[in-house]
Amino acid sequence: MRIAVIYGGTRSNGNTEALTKHAVEGLEVDSIYLNDFHIKSIEDRRHTEGGFSDVGDDYNAVLSRVIQNDIFIFATPIYWYSMSGKMKNFIDRWSQTMKEPQFKGFKESMSKKKAYVIAVGGDSPYIKGLPLIQQFNYIFEFFSLSFEGYIIGKANKPGEIYKDQKAFYEAEQLREILKLQ
Amino acid sequence: MRIAVIYGGTRSNGNTEALTKHAVEGLEVDSIYLNDFHIKSIEDRRHTEGGFSDVGDDYNAVLSRVIQNDIFIFATPIYWYSMSGKMKNFIDRWSQTMKEPQFKGFKESMSKKKAYVIAVGGDSPYIKGLPLIQQFNYIFEFFSLSFEGYIIGKANKPGEIYKDQKAFYEAEQLREILKLQ
Amino acid sequence: MRIAVIYGGTRSNGNTEALTKHAVEGLEVDSIYLNDFHIKSIEDRRHTEGGFSDVGDDYNAVLSRVIQNDIFIFATPIYWYSMSGKMKNFIDRWSQTMKEPQFKGFKESMSKKKAYVIAVGGDSPYIKGLPLIQQFNYIFEFFSLSFEGYIIGKANKPGEIYKDQKAFYEAEQLREILKLQ
Amino acid sequence: MRIAVIYGGTRSNGNTEALTKHAVEGLEVDSIYLNDFHIKSIEDRRHTEGGFSDVGDDYNAVLSRVIQNDIFIFATPIYWYSMSGKMKNFIDRWSQTMKEPQFKGFKESMSKKKAYVIAVGGDSPYIKGLPLIQQFNYIFEFFSLSFEGYIIGKANKPGEIYKDQKAFYEAEQLREILKLQ
Repeated sequence: MRIAVIYGGTRSNGNTEALTKHAVEGLEVDSIYLNDFHIKSIEDRRHTEGGFSDVGDDYNAVLSRVIQNDIFIFATPIYWYSMSGKMKNFIDRWSQTMKEPQFKGFKESMSKKKAYVIAVGGDSPYIKGLPLIQQFNYIFEFFSLSFEGYIIGKANKPGEIYKDQKAFYEAEQLREILKLQ
Repeated sequence: MRIAVIYGGTRSNGNTEALTKHAVEGLEVDSIYLNDFHIKSIEDRRHTEGGFSDVGDDYNAVLSRVIQNDIFIFATPIYWYSMSGKMKNFIDRWSQTMKEPQFKGFKESMSKKKAYVIAVGGDSPYIKGLPLIQQFNYIFEFFSLSFEGYIIGKANKPGEIYKDQKAFYEAEQLREILKLQ
Repeated sequence: MRIAVIYGGTRSNGNTEALTKHAVEGLEVDSIYLNDFHIKSIEDRRHTEGGFSDVGDDYNAVLSRVIQNDIFIFATPIYWYSMSGKMKNFIDRWSQTMKEPQFKGFKESMSKKKAYVIAVGGDSPYIKGLPLIQQFNYIFEFFSLSFEGYIIGKANKPGEIYKDQKAFYEAEQLREILKLQ
Repeated sequence: MRIAVIYGGTRSNGNTEALTKHAVEGLEVDSIYLNDFHIKSIEDRRHTEGGFSDVGDDYNAVLSRVIQNDIFIFATPIYWYSMSGKMKNFIDRWSQTMKEPQFKGFKESMSKKKAYVIAVGGDSPYIKGLPLIQQFNYIFEFFSLSFEGYIIGKANKPGEIYKDQKAFYEAEQLREILKLQ
């Protein structure tokens, strides 16, 4: 099974990335750094005559790359108790994709995939990160996409994540599971 | 007290806007449509040498306008069980503002303000919108900003919000409270 | 449709009861005060040889009465950010009911019913009562029982609920809906 | 520091107990099985003339034993997406304790303690157990009692918890932390 890691962070070698790389070490994955692409916020044109039109950014290319995979790992720092704006913009655009003829079958195809979330925050993430996990759960439920698990890490300053032994253990556990897929 | 309404929607005269306008009808408010401005996603440079630099967008101007007010109404459609990406980008940038000399005292000044949330969604918003409310609660708690209340509305297609009598009643109640401020 | 109101409070004429009575005023309902009955905590014998046995309390009689109805209104004060222990004991026992031959078809029959929750608390119930709502949602989902809506009221001292205009409006709205059933 | 383990389960050697015993293996703890005691549901008499009176059960004795400790581990199976009714009854009674002269200073003394939660459930506990964690968080916040961490385990049938390697690892981690207290 092919694995896409979708990074929502904006800091190179950030804590979320370090933890996630530990989880996929030695595995062949497609690492997609949303920060490297230009992805516009959605304009809600679901009910507009003419519908959505091409907005001239990298979104469609990124999405096409993502959906070639069977397993998605959403790796995001916790910004203000939710995913980063860059990751939110990416996911918001799925509403557009569901209306686009070129992505016919998108919703249905998502139901065959599996998802993991890795989220790292500095302010009581084990408690204050829970609404983010619940939000991802609703997103995945919408697609009948199987939510296989999540890892919450605690870190703020660069490198601090290495102190979170529990998160690293969970990353290793995830790696073992991914190896068997 | 001065009131800012911060709109996160991307559809003109959308359901969230209609409900929110009902809440502030007849009141003098500063209506800020995030969709009218160019606000970039944050680049996390909190721990980077040199820190944040000006990114040449409208964010600082919008923020300056917002914080002149004493009461904030965050009015967002529920996109994928959370605030819109545009609103998330705006809030994410607060991390930058907290580091900027020109906004010295930002965090402290926020603790004197009051906030309301108006959120409208189509997919079981009274249940699936709750993580969004919890997220806003954590954001406001961070600033000791008083979370005065929220209205969840149910609507999907344009105009559907007018059927949500409960939400409109709550909007009227909110209006009465705002009048007394 | 027959309506059961299941009261979890332990104070006569408490705030939750007052709000709930406003919702069902003029309607024929079966009012069940759990406090009037002796209902033991469950002993988990799902995996014990011999299974559950009769524990000699009022539970089976109460349950039999409840399930004759089509609509359930769970009316509970918020004790420590969840339903009262008395209501929890009642619901915990459903695990036993699902194993009892005399209640064969219990789970299936629940899927045809509708449920409402009315919960009143004194400590930021609109925020801190949300986990309770989420918990009820999972309970109802388990049975595919339709969660039709909830009302959160704010009150602490006796009679304080009468100041919560929003909750009373919602109670009236609920009454109109119940009338049409 | 003295450690109390408060067990809310009703099945001897249940999954929650097995996981918790792994966490405290080799440590001196006071193990309190609520199931061994008679603890009545609270009657809310906070606003009744005369207030609470002795209800002739084991609650006061159990509470007295619990509060001699500095660290509390609440170990509960997840029954219907929350703590067991037995544990809820125990916690509900704290409202009474706060009013009792013999427990003067109860609330204040709680603020010096630390708490952990260990919860085991069979139905998607990592997602559907989150409202329970949020509820405990609000309970502990009320007392300014430090919520040091929680472990969620997945198990249904007896013994199934031994397959949850992540939970057992977390139990071992918790043990290391407890040893240092």
